[in-house]
Amino acid sequence: MTLATRGPVRIVGTGLLGTSVGLALRTHGVDVVLHDPSRTALALARDVGAGRPAGPDDTAPALVVVAAPPDVTADVVRAELAAYPDAVVTDVASVKGYVLAELRAAGADLTRYVGSHPMAGRERSGPSAAVPDLFLGRPWVIADSGSSHPDAVLAVRSLAVDLGAVPVTMDADAHDAAVAAVSHVPQVAASLVAARLRGADDAALGLAGQGLRDVTRLAASDPALWTSILAANAAAVRDVLRDLRTDLDTVIDALGQAAAADGPETVELGALATLAQAIADGNAGVARIPGKHGGAQRTYGVVTVLVPDAPGELARLLTEVGEAGVNLEDLHLEHAAGRPVGMAEISVLPGRVEHLEAELTARGWRLVS
Amino acid sequence: MTLATRGPVRIVGTGLLGTSVGLALRTHGVDVVLHDPSRTALALARDVGAGRPAGPDDTAPALVVVAAPPDVTADVVRAELAAYPDAVVTDVASVKGYVLAELRAAGADLTRYVGSHPMAGRERSGPSAAVPDLFLGRPWVIADSGSSHPDAVLAVRSLAVDLGAVPVTMDADAHDAAVAAVSHVPQVAASLVAARLRGADDAALGLAGQGLRDVTRLAASDPALWTSILAANAAAVRDVLRDLRTDLDTVIDALGQAAAADGPETVELGALATLAQAIADGNAGVARIPGKHGGAQRTYGVVTVLVPDAPGELARLLTEVGEAGVNLEDLHLEHAAGRPVGMAEISVLPGRVEHLEAELTARGWRLVS
Repeated sequence: MTLATRGPVRIVGTGLLGTSVGLALRTHGVDVVLHDPSRTALALARDVGAGRPAGPDDTAPALVVVAAPPDVTADVVRAELAAYPDAVVTDVASVKGYVLAELRAAGADLTRYVGSHPMAGRERSGPSAAVPDLFLGRPWVIADSGSSHPDAVLAVRSLAVDLGAVPVTMDADAHDAAVAAVSHVPQVAASLVAARLRGADDAALGLAGQGLRDVTRLAASDPALWTSILAANAAAVRDVLRDLRTDLDTVIDALGQAAAADGPETVELGALATLAQAIADGNAGVARIPGKHGGAQRTYGVVTVLVPDAPGELARLLTEVGEAGVNLEDLHLEHAAGRPVGMAEISVLPGRVEHLEAELTARGWRLVS
Repeated sequence: MTLATRGPVRIVGTGLLGTSVGLALRTHGVDVVLHDPSRTALALARDVGAGRPAGPDDTAPALVVVAAPPDVTADVVRAELAAYPDAVVTDVASVKGYVLAELRAAGADLTRYVGSHPMAGRERSGPSAAVPDLFLGRPWVIADSGSSHPDAVLAVRSLAVDLGAVPVTMDADAHDAAVAAVSHVPQVAASLVAARLRGADDAALGLAGQGLRDVTRLAASDPALWTSILAANAAAVRDVLRDLRTDLDTVIDALGQAAAADGPETVELGALATLAQAIADGNAGVARIPGKHGGAQRTYGVVTVLVPDAPGELARLLTEVGEAGVNLEDLHLEHAAGRPVGMAEISVLPGRVEHLEAELTARGWRLVS
């Protein structure tokens, strides 16, 4: 790999993202200078090897990466543009239009600013959760300011490529509309569904299955961070939620008609069709989400195997999958509550399913299919 | 295991659930008689070993299990109660109040009827997807009719236990409110979020991450089946969705106020707090979902390991986890799009995390933590 990013690179904000950028650049020997208003966060980032704190005799940076919370990003970017008049400045905030609008209103030098957004994260946050591999294979949105100099765009694009990400060119508004639909609205929906569980009794929650867990997993997210993100992308998120509310109202009305009827025959004309359409529209939407390895709607065959819940059993299974000459594309293990048995769902190329099923059956595994 | 369920058991409806009940009972040698209006479904169920078709010289069944779609369940239960005046009749429909109300209105003999609902399913349907292990460790709701004879309740409870399920006693209305919150509303929410993706462009969908995939996984469900379920539990689902809509309206209003402001300082008083509260309420709700092995909120430590996407690598990892003396509680493998590396998230008892991390590091694995 030829490294296009030249140092010194200055990173402002040593949370999960900033520290991970530093770690990755240090792996390639780039000189990384760190800054954070929290001295603890700064010291932690230094200790994990993400770079060195800024010093009085530092050479001016060629590139500044601002990794601050969304609500302070524009102020920090503006200050960095002013402090380093030859540097290219990018930020990695998860909202782009808001930052650009603030910079434009403040008269910042937009030729040297290129917004960006690596689509990477972890459930843990802070410098101690940082890893150099965080961006591997992830999309990294490059949002030209409209006035960005081509060399500035190239510098930020090179940073993304050098960190193993896949650069995606998109303007700030398109980015914000996209993340509203694929990230911010799903977050709100997960939180709203989970919030309804507060009043449920324990017996009801005991019936929870994998579906509920999937829908609500995001609901464990940090309120402070998400308040900042949602406020910074308020208009785009509101627009999608309004459309969702229109659909929700339609479903609620149809359910009201169904509840008032004595049976399917007496439900008001169209109510059942409305319910079926809502589920069918969901089918159409979910089918558009690209699959693994970036291939749109690539599907795998799934072989489900019962695995005793004992050390070594799953390893034995996967060893035997390898011995069968089948490459495992994805794997999910689900335990049945209260039972000493798990189900391993093994995703493989569709053409390999029959072969794998035959091999595993011959080796005494119990298949669920 | 002492089998309490005595034959002949008659199963009406040989889809996924009915055929799985038959397969499990046949494993224990119980005489199972099958019936289905579809001759193809009936023949398939017979061929996979779920029992034998009903014949003219059959002994009357001791127990009848009705596994029909929700909208026809009451009619079938009523017919079976009438046809076999000494049999206990249960059904496995996913909605219970609607069935009970129809039976009561029709003057059926409720002393011999006990509603039930095994919380088990698969993404595939039909007799060919049936497995005898489907109910292992899953909750199985037993809903007394209010007039059910104790012997009838015991017979249905025994069926659940014999099939490896965990019986949960709940009346029909409590059951319906519970599944509205933990199953039906999450289904509607997943469908509504996914439906918003229909209008998104390909570039936006390219930014999709695991969060969106989790929230929308249920959206691939069958519209016909779900129309039937939602219509049969319309009032309970509507009530939860109305509360959810109230919360959604609050969020939309707060976003409108945030969108109208120039920055966080000028957002109308309370709007940001409203957003934070919505996320915090989600935190509180999701924390109530019981964890694996049925223990409420049991949490595991997670060790994340980078695994080359090549045959045998994951097996080698899990072999070494076993060699380290650590029992794997759960495992999820995630691939980075377009990259030949995956991340294996290994859940273990919290006290074992440090030991496992040290062992794996010593063996040369790259940890993400």
